[in-house]
Amino acid sequence: MTTSAQSDGANTFNNTSGESFSAEKYFATQPPPPSLEQDVARVKDFLQKQLQERRKVVLVTSGGTTVPLELNVVRFLDNFSAGTRGATSAEYFLKAGYAVIFMHRQFSLQPFSRHYSHSTHPFLDFLDINEPSGSSAPSFGDIAVRPEERAQLLEVLSTYKAVQRAGTLLTLTFVTVNDYLWLLRAVSQEMSLLGRNCLYYLAAAVSDFFLPRQKMSVHKIQSGKGSLHIEMDQVPKILKPLVAEWTREGFIVSFKLETDEDLLVPKARQALARYGHQVVIGNELHRRKFEVVFVSPKSASPPSASPALSTEIAEPPSADYEETWLTIDLEQNPEKEIEEDIVAELVRRHARWIDNATRNV
Amino acid sequence: MTTSAQSDGANTFNNTSGESFSAEKYFATQPPPPSLEQDVARVKDFLQKQLQERRKVVLVTSGGTTVPLELNVVRFLDNFSAGTRGATSAEYFLKAGYAVIFMHRQFSLQPFSRHYSHSTHPFLDFLDINEPSGSSAPSFGDIAVRPEERAQLLEVLSTYKAVQRAGTLLTLTFVTVNDYLWLLRAVSQEMSLLGRNCLYYLAAAVSDFFLPRQKMSVHKIQSGKGSLHIEMDQVPKILKPLVAEWTREGFIVSFKLETDEDLLVPKARQALARYGHQVVIGNELHRRKFEVVFVSPKSASPPSASPALSTEIAEPPSADYEETWLTIDLEQNPEKEIEEDIVAELVRRHARWIDNATRNV
Repeated sequence: MTTSAQSDGANTFNNTSGESFSAEKYFATQPPPPSLEQDVARVKDFLQKQLQERRKVVLVTSGGTTVPLELNVVRFLDNFSAGTRGATSAEYFLKAGYAVIFMHRQFSLQPFSRHYSHSTHPFLDFLDINEPSGSSAPSFGDIAVRPEERAQLLEVLSTYKAVQRAGTLLTLTFVTVNDYLWLLRAVSQEMSLLGRNCLYYLAAAVSDFFLPRQKMSVHKIQSGKGSLHIEMDQVPKILKPLVAEWTREGFIVSFKLETDEDLLVPKARQALARYGHQVVIGNELHRRKFEVVFVSPKSASPPSASPALSTEIAEPPSADYEETWLTIDLEQNPEKEIEEDIVAELVRRHARWIDNATRNV
Repeated sequence: MTTSAQSDGANTFNNTSGESFSAEKYFATQPPPPSLEQDVARVKDFLQKQLQERRKVVLVTSGGTTVPLELNVVRFLDNFSAGTRGATSAEYFLKAGYAVIFMHRQFSLQPFSRHYSHSTHPFLDFLDINEPSGSSAPSFGDIAVRPEERAQLLEVLSTYKAVQRAGTLLTLTFVTVNDYLWLLRAVSQEMSLLGRNCLYYLAAAVSDFFLPRQKMSVHKIQSGKGSLHIEMDQVPKILKPLVAEWTREGFIVSFKLETDEDLLVPKARQALARYGHQVVIGNELHRRKFEVVFVSPKSASPPSASPALSTEIAEPPSADYEETWLTIDLEQNPEKEIEEDIVAELVRRHARWIDNATRNV
């Protein structure tokens, strides 16, 4: 991105296309996960159904990714994420009438079942065994839900069953950052056929670093040889080809998690300038349950008439961006989930995005 | 452990006490987890109850440990472990009449609820809503367990409730390798008051490496600065002080997970020689569901009359060890869990261990 004083052809080429090339190089050198073809087939079926039923579709990515250090994986680098943001948001998107492709890290939280975490709200604790009391009772003890848990469970369960009947939730699973990258590329390429009717909600905590397969140790790294040195390569910036190639018309929302609040807005702007997408939601690690900031290019609402332009935003000055802070008061309303407001805001923005494109045709 | 030709006093000191010193140094320099005192209080109460009721107690450690790379944790190194071995074994120990301290990695599998993983057997899928059918029915739909799930759930639920009533299961949670080390030391020191009536079943996948707090980055490590280099220190070999200091009479079982089968037995023997405990259970990553090997010193069954001796085993030749392979046939019996046989074998060996000590008094 820095323009060098000497106008050396080769250097310029490296500077402007290095990142895009490195995504290509990534997929050319790292093997796809074995389940990819099967997953893509499920995505195709799901999208056909949603197209026929004229539903908007959101891809929600959720949970952390792992970076295996060994081919026979024992150790890996991981990113902290229980998957709360993604699982909660998926429920609100479903409520808003979207179909949801929920692409999540194995064992991270999922919509609906998230209310019954084995650690914090184990479901075995709200089941009772009623001893048989008379001759008309079944011959063994009967299982019943405790009265105090009944109302919430009934609500969660009936929404869950309604979603299953409607066929509006598709769950895909990844573990490694490699699984994630391959899956994201394949799903977004399929979703592009929906044009502006698709939204990307990229809430997964994706590793910035990876260990190429070619550099991995085949067996478990042996300890007892002093300290451990790991040298990793950078994961390609996947937003670049996502915006520019795989899904040109989708409304794309990415996330920035920082522990230094001062970095939030500058890093969000930087990402928008670099990749040319629609929104970055910034969240600080310790405030993320009650405060986020939406950062977006001012030109994007209303967007320019030419869809091609949005893929080629240069690095504009900070006046070209706007921030919207979204805060909830958890003391006043402890049950409130900030994802409800995040999703409501995005549904509005996405509708405007679709609307503007239609008016400009 | 290698005896150098030159008999240099300082060198000898370093060779023989280096590891033990490093555990001391670890606890002197790394801070305890905030919940430690509260956990220890719960352990004290639990052990008092089991002492009064004359129950044997097993400490089951389970799941992987993390190594945070940042003080405000976003990234961490992790060890692969869903916690199946530990959670399953804990159930069989409870069935065998033991009280269980289940010390597990947050979000790893737990006894009983493990049967209902949100990923593979989600409990929302086996609940039905029965619509109200008549005037005598409740005013809203009623929740019922599907008939085909009822028998298994009833069994799991009644065992779970019986264990709760008896007060024989205490669950402790750790996340980082630092949490684990502090908790293991504290719990084993408390458990030592049970003498030979306690068993240690150390199934957690503990990191061999850690990043001292003093070397951690305060904020999230920024990407975009090329590749990531991590240099970590070795975690002290905690079995050494566990055997030699914290719990002199406990029956201690550790685990070795390897991906290279040829390393299993040699590394198990090496661990026994180094730490002087009772059993190493070796398992190869891909065969661990149906095959394990028990490696133990021949002198330990029956053990020598002097309990002190078992803490000072030198490095004996391989003829001093015996291996017992334990295999199950999952094709013939797909429901069988190898942990049932592992626990049965350990319960027998632990009984002999207690018995021998009594006869030798």
